[in-house]
Amino acid sequence: MANTLGELYRLTTFGESHGSAIGGIIDGCPSGITLDLEQVQKEMDRRKPGQSKIVTQRKEPDAVEFHSGIFEGKTTGMPIGFSIKNTNQKSKDYNHNVSVFRPSHADFTYDKKYGHRDHRGGGRSSARETANWVVGGAIAKQCLPEIEINAFTSSVGDIFIDKAYQDLDFSKIESNIVRCPDKKIADQMIDRIKEVKKAGDTIGGTITCVIKGLDSGLGEPIFDKLHAALGHAMLSLNAVKGFEYGSGFCGAKMLGSEHNDEFNPDGSTSTNLSGGIQGGISNGMDIYFRVAFKPVATIMRNQKTIDSEGNTQVIMGKGRHDPCVVPRAIPVVEALAAMVLLDFKKRAAANSI
Amino acid sequence: MANTLGELYRLTTFGESHGSAIGGIIDGCPSGITLDLEQVQKEMDRRKPGQSKIVTQRKEPDAVEFHSGIFEGKTTGMPIGFSIKNTNQKSKDYNHNVSVFRPSHADFTYDKKYGHRDHRGGGRSSARETANWVVGGAIAKQCLPEIEINAFTSSVGDIFIDKAYQDLDFSKIESNIVRCPDKKIADQMIDRIKEVKKAGDTIGGTITCVIKGLDSGLGEPIFDKLHAALGHAMLSLNAVKGFEYGSGFCGAKMLGSEHNDEFNPDGSTSTNLSGGIQGGISNGMDIYFRVAFKPVATIMRNQKTIDSEGNTQVIMGKGRHDPCVVPRAIPVVEALAAMVLLDFKKRAAANSI
Amino acid sequence: MANTLGELYRLTTFGESHGSAIGGIIDGCPSGITLDLEQVQKEMDRRKPGQSKIVTQRKEPDAVEFHSGIFEGKTTGMPIGFSIKNTNQKSKDYNHNVSVFRPSHADFTYDKKYGHRDHRGGGRSSARETANWVVGGAIAKQCLPEIEINAFTSSVGDIFIDKAYQDLDFSKIESNIVRCPDKKIADQMIDRIKEVKKAGDTIGGTITCVIKGLDSGLGEPIFDKLHAALGHAMLSLNAVKGFEYGSGFCGAKMLGSEHNDEFNPDGSTSTNLSGGIQGGISNGMDIYFRVAFKPVATIMRNQKTIDSEGNTQVIMGKGRHDPCVVPRAIPVVEALAAMVLLDFKKRAAANSI
Amino acid sequence: MANTLGELYRLTTFGESHGSAIGGIIDGCPSGITLDLEQVQKEMDRRKPGQSKIVTQRKEPDAVEFHSGIFEGKTTGMPIGFSIKNTNQKSKDYNHNVSVFRPSHADFTYDKKYGHRDHRGGGRSSARETANWVVGGAIAKQCLPEIEINAFTSSVGDIFIDKAYQDLDFSKIESNIVRCPDKKIADQMIDRIKEVKKAGDTIGGTITCVIKGLDSGLGEPIFDKLHAALGHAMLSLNAVKGFEYGSGFCGAKMLGSEHNDEFNPDGSTSTNLSGGIQGGISNGMDIYFRVAFKPVATIMRNQKTIDSEGNTQVIMGKGRHDPCVVPRAIPVVEALAAMVLLDFKKRAAANSI
Repeated sequence: MANTLGELYRLTTFGESHGSAIGGIIDGCPSGITLDLEQVQKEMDRRKPGQSKIVTQRKEPDAVEFHSGIFEGKTTGMPIGFSIKNTNQKSKDYNHNVSVFRPSHADFTYDKKYGHRDHRGGGRSSARETANWVVGGAIAKQCLPEIEINAFTSSVGDIFIDKAYQDLDFSKIESNIVRCPDKKIADQMIDRIKEVKKAGDTIGGTITCVIKGLDSGLGEPIFDKLHAALGHAMLSLNAVKGFEYGSGFCGAKMLGSEHNDEFNPDGSTSTNLSGGIQGGISNGMDIYFRVAFKPVATIMRNQKTIDSEGNTQVIMGKGRHDPCVVPRAIPVVEALAAMVLLDFKKRAAANSI
Repeated sequence: MANTLGELYRLTTFGESHGSAIGGIIDGCPSGITLDLEQVQKEMDRRKPGQSKIVTQRKEPDAVEFHSGIFEGKTTGMPIGFSIKNTNQKSKDYNHNVSVFRPSHADFTYDKKYGHRDHRGGGRSSARETANWVVGGAIAKQCLPEIEINAFTSSVGDIFIDKAYQDLDFSKIESNIVRCPDKKIADQMIDRIKEVKKAGDTIGGTITCVIKGLDSGLGEPIFDKLHAALGHAMLSLNAVKGFEYGSGFCGAKMLGSEHNDEFNPDGSTSTNLSGGIQGGISNGMDIYFRVAFKPVATIMRNQKTIDSEGNTQVIMGKGRHDPCVVPRAIPVVEALAAMVLLDFKKRAAANSI
Repeated sequence: MANTLGELYRLTTFGESHGSAIGGIIDGCPSGITLDLEQVQKEMDRRKPGQSKIVTQRKEPDAVEFHSGIFEGKTTGMPIGFSIKNTNQKSKDYNHNVSVFRPSHADFTYDKKYGHRDHRGGGRSSARETANWVVGGAIAKQCLPEIEINAFTSSVGDIFIDKAYQDLDFSKIESNIVRCPDKKIADQMIDRIKEVKKAGDTIGGTITCVIKGLDSGLGEPIFDKLHAALGHAMLSLNAVKGFEYGSGFCGAKMLGSEHNDEFNPDGSTSTNLSGGIQGGISNGMDIYFRVAFKPVATIMRNQKTIDSEGNTQVIMGKGRHDPCVVPRAIPVVEALAAMVLLDFKKRAAANSI
Repeated sequence: MANTLGELYRLTTFGESHGSAIGGIIDGCPSGITLDLEQVQKEMDRRKPGQSKIVTQRKEPDAVEFHSGIFEGKTTGMPIGFSIKNTNQKSKDYNHNVSVFRPSHADFTYDKKYGHRDHRGGGRSSARETANWVVGGAIAKQCLPEIEINAFTSSVGDIFIDKAYQDLDFSKIESNIVRCPDKKIADQMIDRIKEVKKAGDTIGGTITCVIKGLDSGLGEPIFDKLHAALGHAMLSLNAVKGFEYGSGFCGAKMLGSEHNDEFNPDGSTSTNLSGGIQGGISNGMDIYFRVAFKPVATIMRNQKTIDSEGNTQVIMGKGRHDPCVVPRAIPVVEALAAMVLLDFKKRAAANSI
């Protein structure tokens, strides 16, 4: 439901950006898996604030504590409870927001829906929540050693990679702070983000994610097709406005004779406009999809808005915010993908009897 | 799960394209609603094959029979069982497909996942299933009289409407066979589809859907944001490759200062790039989204493929197929949207205590 | 939810006693199972009305029609839609009930909860619904050939079998119309039911169910322990007032030193007061449980009641009713058990990766 | 699923008896409720070990820490994360159990199902988990101020209260350490437990629970009848072997003419053998049910068993254990009931539109 992702591998989370801690419970992790908890922390570090010049300068160690489900270094099949302390919240940055709705944030809708809310830093609607997801995803990845998931920045504003993903070297993704595997484009993106930041503004972008090594047979049509579940997960991520897989929106411009993927004798296809999924089920080819992020809503400029009594107000962002959400969202996209894939692997196993 | 859509208003379906019947069970329909069953049938007629020159020429009356949950013309709150007989299937059109995998269809993946399958006409993976959805959606619409849902063809191939939806007259959608409210563009689209059909080919397109009259407060963050649930539903539809709402993929190119929707004193916003949803919850503005459909995979041309023993084969489509899926998918998009909205309205009511 | 039983093997049902048909959708049936549909019908015949002198004399063929999910005699893994026509309902028997609430029936509560209801024969609350369950259970049984499920009448009123189940010959269950494997006790039960029927009254009873051949490892603690799921299913059955497994309520009178089951070297236990389940998980020993049924609420005697306007009324049962529900409930208890076991077998398989 | 209770008010838990902490996430708590956290702690104190001479002498403060979902003393509708530190576990008491299966415990079945397990103190299968439930229940109670839930010890071994619950003074329940409202019977029970404890043995018992003040209309037939959900919850509790409501197993001995509850002009019934539920829906009368607990499996006597290699072993309980689980289970039964009722109240609200 509302705070749970997945059916058989499920992450349930809690936490507000300015409470004492955030955390979650992972239910359905297979038993007997030797977990590398340092690797979990490394994934956290890819998401954490303050890691580079082009992200928010908040400092959070984002250290994960595990409370259950792991015994003598191995999973027991029991729920894994974990928490992450909030150590660097500055609530006073948000005092001015008590009753002023920040444009294109969730302040207004949470207020309308729930009445009483923790307004500090967006509370529950803050992207701080996604730290929990990285924990769930890092553990899922370790349960799926045969699968390789690579997400990267494919565009920032109107700067984009003009190559097919097959022509990119994924080992270069982490070699620059914007996480774009094409160095030349990466430099342009970084410059653009710095420029935008200097102007007190923010900018959108897209992330492409490629999944290799997945067998055929994952996906549960009719209503839990693999791409629908991936889409649902990605659309849960803060600031996401769109999802496409395979040919995506470009496919809508094509003819069937251009778009169909013909089969090779070994069951692979000679092209892969399907994006590795046919009829909602993986076919063994690479899965790839693209996610669109709007620009961060907090800008250091005056904006017209209202307060909870309907009075007109002018608001300007304070605090420490990301000028572009995309670089830090990359490990989150991978984490979501990993959780979905493990969930569907378990669901496929259930169908095997 | 796999064959159920929704949490509190739920449609569970069954049926293959070439079995005796398809059907479903609607659970969670409010009690005491006076149903107009003729109106349900009218929605069915918008989806049914054979309705115009640019769709498949199969003839199916698609008459819905209701078995339960309605007493003396009103819903009782009990599950509504219904069925639709398959009357015009021509199984022999598919005899040649027993073991030959049609490119970019679900034949290969269903075979890999389930082993034994009803191969005729795609069986369960056929878009015939979507007739069930129209029933669920038509009833949901009648439970939501305050809400207006309008879907229309916004592009076919590279022909697209170049106006904002606010400048369109939705009452014109049903005035032409391609269901595009702009007559001039509609004519071009129809010509393009006829041309493609004549060439034995197929073509993709997009559908835009606009929802008016919805109150603020619908949506269940974190993992069932309203747009994520809409996206999940739309991505369940056959041939869909992408989903975007509000600014969508265009939003990824924008600056925060361009993208933010400033509030008016009455709580509305002066722009609506958010697409009526902020933080996953409706804000009372129009909701709008766009869905990308690939070209239909069945083409009347030779294609290379394999059979289930790995032998190379050449296949050409037979039977009666749609050259472009978009015109008939419009009532389906509306039906899915209506079911999601009613589900979330019920979920919001559950939160009200 | 409300009209669905199970997580991974799920039965969703519809239908009222006096509508045109009842039916359901089975989702999650494994693919490639050769189904014996005559055997399904035989299970239906064990439940159907009119089968003996001690049950209701209504005549219903209860013929099941399958619409999907089975192709060339084998399951495809797709949802199995089925329906059962209502052929012998006599609605006029219920005309007098339009607004008079029958004591200890669900008329009053359905009226309060749903407002508008199909009052004929109890509508949705009728035990007619359980015919659907027998279909779901009969198919589940065929997916579990290694497991033997035997339910039998263990008491009628204060007549009860005074032997351990191990001393009974289950092959005798179907040899008498009350379905009690002890002939002497069976005869007493039959006489008692006839006597009660003659007096226009009804009588309660208990059913014991024994499951053999189940491996260890089924059950999902903490909140889906195997016995909790069995209890939930049994408590869903009309007229059930209690459920106990293993030592049950007698166990509450015992000492630990009497109650504990010591282990044999092969992992079996020397006694089985646990009832084959420890910590919510099957341990490989026989599972056994007992279900208590109250007397049928419809009696052929005058009772004081009210109508929907609060006027005092006197009501006497009409129509054709069971003097004791237990004999016909036996196949239903088995069906529910089979569905729960298959569901948990699938859930265990999901945990295997 | 496995570690989650409820649909719309849901508790998801984690934790082993000898890990660093246990805890949970409450999802679906209504917003705007002023919470009395001291009252939550008082409920915890009713369950905590060491509270009297007849319970385990372990000392645990069982202090609950809340991490989210509460802001300025009121709920926000966001998930409530909480944890309870394990402060007094003595793992060495369990060293001897590493590979020796304690009779009638869950050691054997967890080992078979999960392979790798935290064996200390039963790990996840320990009743320590129920501390989490008391938190979930204490908060649910505060959301249901109109409802009164009273559980009490109705029997210990063969000592039982021989009065109808209507003749008991519930204000006396907490006046003695066995939580039996009849002082004379309470004294006998306490003596019996002391005697059993002295003998190194344990004893079973029953708890009766009475719910007053509930409106008609709660319950979701067919498969989530109110009593089925209550039964499911109670059967989740460690050591429970049976559940009955209303007339229960006694009802199976009765005639319809004795058992039916006739209606009074105001819609109440003159008797209440139905136990406040008809057709799975509350009817506004008192709900009452009874839960059977087997004797605690840990006894201070030699028992034959095996180790994980199949070697015969003799085992004797160590550590500090309850001679009778019933007195400490009373707040847990109430907590489970409260959570189920709030869940169904929300579900009823969802049906109201």
